[in-house]
Amino acid sequence: MNRMHNDPVNFREEMIAGFCAAYPHIVQRVEGASGIRAVNAPQQGKVSVIVGGGSGHYPAFYGLVGSGLASAGVIGDIFTSPSGEQAYRVAKAVDGGAGILWTFGNYSGDVMNFGMAEMRLQAEGIESTTVLVTDDVLSAPKAEADRRRGIAGGFYVFKTAGASAARGDSLREVERLTRKANARTRTAGIALGGCTIPGQGEPLFTVEHGKMEVGLGIHGEPGVRVQEQLSSSGIAQLLIDSLMADAPADGGGEVAVLVNGLGGIKYEELFVLNSAIGPLLQKAGLRVYETQIGEFVTSLDMAGCSITLHWLDDELRPLHDATAQSPAYTRIGPDVQAVSQVVGAATGVVSSIGKAVQQFADSVRTTSASDAEQGVPGKAGAAARVAIADALAAVKGIETQLGRLDAVAGDGDHGAGMVRGMTAAEDAVKGFSGTARETFTKAGTAFQDAAGGASGALVGAFM
Amino acid sequence: MNRMHNDPVNFREEMIAGFCAAYPHIVQRVEGASGIRAVNAPQQGKVSVIVGGGSGHYPAFYGLVGSGLASAGVIGDIFTSPSGEQAYRVAKAVDGGAGILWTFGNYSGDVMNFGMAEMRLQAEGIESTTVLVTDDVLSAPKAEADRRRGIAGGFYVFKTAGASAARGDSLREVERLTRKANARTRTAGIALGGCTIPGQGEPLFTVEHGKMEVGLGIHGEPGVRVQEQLSSSGIAQLLIDSLMADAPADGGGEVAVLVNGLGGIKYEELFVLNSAIGPLLQKAGLRVYETQIGEFVTSLDMAGCSITLHWLDDELRPLHDATAQSPAYTRIGPDVQAVSQVVGAATGVVSSIGKAVQQFADSVRTTSASDAEQGVPGKAGAAARVAIADALAAVKGIETQLGRLDAVAGDGDHGAGMVRGMTAAEDAVKGFSGTARETFTKAGTAFQDAAGGASGALVGAFM
Repeated sequence: MNRMHNDPVNFREEMIAGFCAAYPHIVQRVEGASGIRAVNAPQQGKVSVIVGGGSGHYPAFYGLVGSGLASAGVIGDIFTSPSGEQAYRVAKAVDGGAGILWTFGNYSGDVMNFGMAEMRLQAEGIESTTVLVTDDVLSAPKAEADRRRGIAGGFYVFKTAGASAARGDSLREVERLTRKANARTRTAGIALGGCTIPGQGEPLFTVEHGKMEVGLGIHGEPGVRVQEQLSSSGIAQLLIDSLMADAPADGGGEVAVLVNGLGGIKYEELFVLNSAIGPLLQKAGLRVYETQIGEFVTSLDMAGCSITLHWLDDELRPLHDATAQSPAYTRIGPDVQAVSQVVGAATGVVSSIGKAVQQFADSVRTTSASDAEQGVPGKAGAAARVAIADALAAVKGIETQLGRLDAVAGDGDHGAGMVRGMTAAEDAVKGFSGTARETFTKAGTAFQDAAGGASGALVGAFM
Repeated sequence: MNRMHNDPVNFREEMIAGFCAAYPHIVQRVEGASGIRAVNAPQQGKVSVIVGGGSGHYPAFYGLVGSGLASAGVIGDIFTSPSGEQAYRVAKAVDGGAGILWTFGNYSGDVMNFGMAEMRLQAEGIESTTVLVTDDVLSAPKAEADRRRGIAGGFYVFKTAGASAARGDSLREVERLTRKANARTRTAGIALGGCTIPGQGEPLFTVEHGKMEVGLGIHGEPGVRVQEQLSSSGIAQLLIDSLMADAPADGGGEVAVLVNGLGGIKYEELFVLNSAIGPLLQKAGLRVYETQIGEFVTSLDMAGCSITLHWLDDELRPLHDATAQSPAYTRIGPDVQAVSQVVGAATGVVSSIGKAVQQFADSVRTTSASDAEQGVPGKAGAAARVAIADALAAVKGIETQLGRLDAVAGDGDHGAGMVRGMTAAEDAVKGFSGTARETFTKAGTAFQDAAGGASGALVGAFM
């Protein structure tokens, strides 16, 4: 296979330059180091998450640097670990004072080099810890699970770490959750053909027509055994069986599924593969929370694919779902979705309340203004009660959205509080026949009592 | 190259099934037709945008169905146009009463089949029109630009159509903008190797080592000429030269850049290619608005790549930038970004105003409550003036965000109006020595006068 390149010696440098030129709003080159950082890193007082390893695996690792994901990526030559010196420099550039979490695949070169950087940081008093990705069930038996290498499942580990750090968790907490994410992630894969490195004419390995390698490597190494090529459904069965034989004991019944292409097996083939995965997981008693299909960890143009299962629970799910934006992965999380919905809904509420106020004002105008002011019961009082009922209806209509919005900004009970308050206000003045002022005073007091909190005080006072 | 599949006869059906199983929150299968629709389509009163063509090009075309993008995609077998009957059924499923815009690459099979569907719709009184994608400058000379085929630049055409339809533009307007997007989009590409179709053992064409095809096709067809393989920089030069020789006359100086991989040329190679593109465009007097690098239109595992330039202007830029969510492409647009920022800021303002109100309440408590109520000037009045000044400071701090938020929900002047109103309120009571009630009444009237609009009335009344 021909590859496209200039002088292969400059490949890495030109690759980083071309990448940074494309995404200046998300990432930038770390001055004097072979790595990139998120433009918003470091964030003072927050943990920085650093990923890295050899290149040739895009979007792993540096395509996952951005907000809600990794703070920085250390970038080696194709399939070659970056040096400890480079890793150290990248870490220094994104130290935000709350510690550094390293997370990368379990390969000896990376372990050695990142380990050296970690020791230097610790010597300088910068807290630093490492979570190795060890998701490949076919690379070592269960009894030696810590010897397993990291492949596509790293995506979930990095996403968990990035989301945990972004919300301000402590280094210990980010580490705990990242370790948990790795412990609940399993991957197995196959390959139908090897990849070619820029500057070399031949692929690193070839697979005989009609055969396949089981237990792929992502550094151009062949799988752990060769067998007859199975159909897509047969491959799905083989891989799911391997994963289920190794399911985490306390995993629970809900998984996120990643169907990953290594470069040369393409999307359409992965969709066909996925058509067989759902029924197999259902048979295994697992509920699929979400499936993602695409190229998440590649090995240049290697014709391979893998299936990853990531067992979710109430702690990991919000981290999986959180908003993220990086060159290779953008996710609109429930926080942003709630905000978008509430803006649409709030526009409606403001216009409803505005209309109620307008109607109230009109009613008052048709009565004698001084009557209303002096406390004569009548139309203005009735109009006030209509306005309160209208406002209650409008608020009820967006209770859920208000709650979701408040879950982002506060404690999630804003929607319920508003409805509780408005209901109490309406009840207090139902059948009441006082003046507008008396009506609003009565309603305001009732609102304040029922809703409580800051909005209780503010809206109550408004009335 | 081996491919992964079951019985090739069922490839398309299994592919659609596996795809829909993965993204049920975004798309669903069109009942009884070879196509998918966005789960939120049709939207009554909005134009539906339909894309389609043979498969093997993922994420073109059906990966781009979702919100802010295409309403539906018609899906053919690999490299084979879907039938007119299938296209008709998909269109019927997403007719929202405001017309159908078809947009797809200029290939005779697609033109014929989608054309038949369009005629049937029109016969039923469903307004329907077509914009062909013709971005490949190497496929026909400038004088015969309407004979050109559609390749990677289709991404910009589909994005424009989807964003225009999503915001509620009329069919004529969506058509005009989509046509304009196509007229301002140019693509040129090369290939180093052909792709293999599932069920066939050999690639559709091969390229001799050290050679390259110039002017790639995306249906497995070779390029328009063969030449010596150039370096990445040489390829960038060749492609940019081809594009600039054909630049739209009235294009202006700003372009979006798409560096597309056809399947077998991988991300790292595309980054190296991109490192040469920036300087070439600068030399050509073009400013790069944004670059995207990845696989946007593929041809299975074909080792090819292309560069697309999309000339932006004030009309096309907002459509390019708009929020979109589909299985293959998610974008967080400026609307959502503004909303996210304002939620963060608003939390701060609410707490500032709450604090001011609290301080005011505390001050009142230290005065005689009846004094304040009965109109005795003093501490409560002073506290009221402090509260107003604090509120002004808080509002000023988020003027820009409020404006951006209002630009989404209204007319963009909410931030300015609030500041204007609060400034007037503060001015009105500066040096004033009345009671709290007098102070707030004076401030409220001034606010209402200065701010105007619905918020003027509401906040004024609040005071």
